[in-house]
Amino acid sequence: MSITSFNPPVRTLMGPGPSDVHPRITSAMARPTIGHLDPAFVGMMDEVKQMLQYAFQTKNQLTIPVSAPGSAGMETTFVNLLERGDKAIVCQNGVFGGRMKENVERCGATPIMVEDEWGKPVDPQKVEDALKANPDAKLLAFVHAETSTGARSDADILCKLAHDHDTLTLVDTVTSLAGCELKVDEWGIDAIYSGTQKCLSCTPGISPVSFSERAVDVITKRNSKVQSWFLDTNLVMGYWGSNAKRAYHHTAPVNALYALHEALVILQEEGLENAWARHTNNHQALRAGLEAMGLAFVVDEAHRLPQLNSVTIPDGIDEAAVRSRLLNEFNLEIGAGLGTLAGRVWRIGLMGYSSRAENIFLCLSSLEAVLSDMGADVNTGVALEAAQAAMK
Amino acid sequence: MSITSFNPPVRTLMGPGPSDVHPRITSAMARPTIGHLDPAFVGMMDEVKQMLQYAFQTKNQLTIPVSAPGSAGMETTFVNLLERGDKAIVCQNGVFGGRMKENVERCGATPIMVEDEWGKPVDPQKVEDALKANPDAKLLAFVHAETSTGARSDADILCKLAHDHDTLTLVDTVTSLAGCELKVDEWGIDAIYSGTQKCLSCTPGISPVSFSERAVDVITKRNSKVQSWFLDTNLVMGYWGSNAKRAYHHTAPVNALYALHEALVILQEEGLENAWARHTNNHQALRAGLEAMGLAFVVDEAHRLPQLNSVTIPDGIDEAAVRSRLLNEFNLEIGAGLGTLAGRVWRIGLMGYSSRAENIFLCLSSLEAVLSDMGADVNTGVALEAAQAAMK
Repeated sequence: MSITSFNPPVRTLMGPGPSDVHPRITSAMARPTIGHLDPAFVGMMDEVKQMLQYAFQTKNQLTIPVSAPGSAGMETTFVNLLERGDKAIVCQNGVFGGRMKENVERCGATPIMVEDEWGKPVDPQKVEDALKANPDAKLLAFVHAETSTGARSDADILCKLAHDHDTLTLVDTVTSLAGCELKVDEWGIDAIYSGTQKCLSCTPGISPVSFSERAVDVITKRNSKVQSWFLDTNLVMGYWGSNAKRAYHHTAPVNALYALHEALVILQEEGLENAWARHTNNHQALRAGLEAMGLAFVVDEAHRLPQLNSVTIPDGIDEAAVRSRLLNEFNLEIGAGLGTLAGRVWRIGLMGYSSRAENIFLCLSSLEAVLSDMGADVNTGVALEAAQAAMK
Repeated sequence: MSITSFNPPVRTLMGPGPSDVHPRITSAMARPTIGHLDPAFVGMMDEVKQMLQYAFQTKNQLTIPVSAPGSAGMETTFVNLLERGDKAIVCQNGVFGGRMKENVERCGATPIMVEDEWGKPVDPQKVEDALKANPDAKLLAFVHAETSTGARSDADILCKLAHDHDTLTLVDTVTSLAGCELKVDEWGIDAIYSGTQKCLSCTPGISPVSFSERAVDVITKRNSKVQSWFLDTNLVMGYWGSNAKRAYHHTAPVNALYALHEALVILQEEGLENAWARHTNNHQALRAGLEAMGLAFVVDEAHRLPQLNSVTIPDGIDEAAVRSRLLNEFNLEIGAGLGTLAGRVWRIGLMGYSSRAENIFLCLSSLEAVLSDMGADVNTGVALEAAQAAMK
């Protein structure tokens, strides 16, 4: 065996995540490792919590980064809130609603499914019907920004419906955090999780979560222990909580948290509302270019996420071959479809540091080059101009 | 709010982990992020698996890094092997045996406890008695290297006992991997987990695990789904397995895996047996210095881990004050006692890249400086010479 150091190719990441990581963030990640109980580290943890509260627009005390990817953040919210025998309403309009269902079942609870077509937002009327039919449901779970389709659901309205029925709300914001409007306290979200590798433009591996006081109250009054020791917020808060004494729970991923800290400093420098506006503006430019080329969007304009653009594939084109050529010839990654949309769409991300004019130009140029070379029925020579016009 | 970039102090890490991270590893971590399904990344994943098999001394196909810290690795082994109503024998001779008990209970299974004094190894006779008394036990779980005490148990003997009773073995090697002899296949370990931040000298946050064919067979034939979606090896192997098609499960912590890859390349360059020998030799040098100073070891020589040195605190000395001064005056971190040993011992790590002559000299010099300044009853002016003599 003689394996040598790994030097990755330098890519431009415009898939569904990870997105391009700002060089300030990878630099921060390479800073010297210190102990997870070092006073200097504990001070940094407090800053991370404070900046996460800003990013989520919440005053929730239980706002922390889980030491694992977004899927573990999802699991954190479910295993802490649900007990065996509970009932949960789960909305599914893409891959991640299905994953929520799996989480509910593995908690020994019963999922009540509210189904919507992939690419459509969650239908508030169906949710209201489900809430009425299931007054014993403990929570309503839905995905704010469906990464598998690019559809945005109206989290504000859905949360208000749930609260009208005295039901907790659990929301997936893996793709929305820092990429479009998200207001945890104003909307009344009780449990929320996200990821670092989308619109925060950080390296993958950490999942910010937040729980309202109402949710914390439910967790504190559980009859049974949380089934996951690692994700039990009662224990995690011994380390991340604001007590003077930080008790060892697990060894924090020190350098990954340096990276998250830097990503949040960058967000704070830009300003949350400015970040949202940048994502919207760059989406308009990419959209103008793609539509000029003749490509169509999967999601209706009213429910389209600016940070994740699902577009249909021209007739007769091998979509995987296009992605391979983009990667091999231009070091550009765009995403494939997932689940029922596999083979039918591309997912083009404009998330965080990837949401830049340079990336839009590269994407339109290289996509046009590959598609026209493959004989696709697309308009050539017009996309860049359309994008530039939309940027003004 | 005006939080700025975090620049950590530069420490020497000689606690129970994280250990000093080799600069090659932090540099690797800062390389450009690529997609978790990028062919270049998938190739790197195969190398990581291959090098983990070498580090564990196993041919197990299911040998992968879990995308979370060692505590999640522990949970991975328990939730995959246990179902509700199962029985598991758990040995406790320190903090981590207690955590194993928690894991068993949270799986809805019953722990049969085998207790030994903290600082002592697990007693094979007690284990044999427990195996005889519980022929229906599904597995025997124990900690190879107790990080809370510095005691090493005889994993080879314990595993053979378990197999004589047709019981699976589950072993915690968070602190032993790459620091002392560990042979998964030869000893017959069925499920094992470790951490990156100890003798691999990597950044914290990833947990290497491995399952034998016998264990995989048990997992495949489960009656119920694994209670954790995130840690379900049936699903994780869709991404990490050797199938041509890598299915998305969760977004891998790309940069953290660059770091692990580099740590494993360094281990391979040194050679596993050489790394074990280095840990032993450096332990002898540190030990000679500490004993010359007059400090005593907690664990009997025969069962002492070379990479984790628990020593008693001189009479009348405020142990926390000593650690604070070491940190503030010399940027040196050593560990406090945990659990029943809290306030009674220090834990001095010589793990991975921390296991170096330079660190031994710094530790002895600064400890002597602080202790003598605080009026402790220790011998001065003799520790360094004793350590140097032991190095020859």
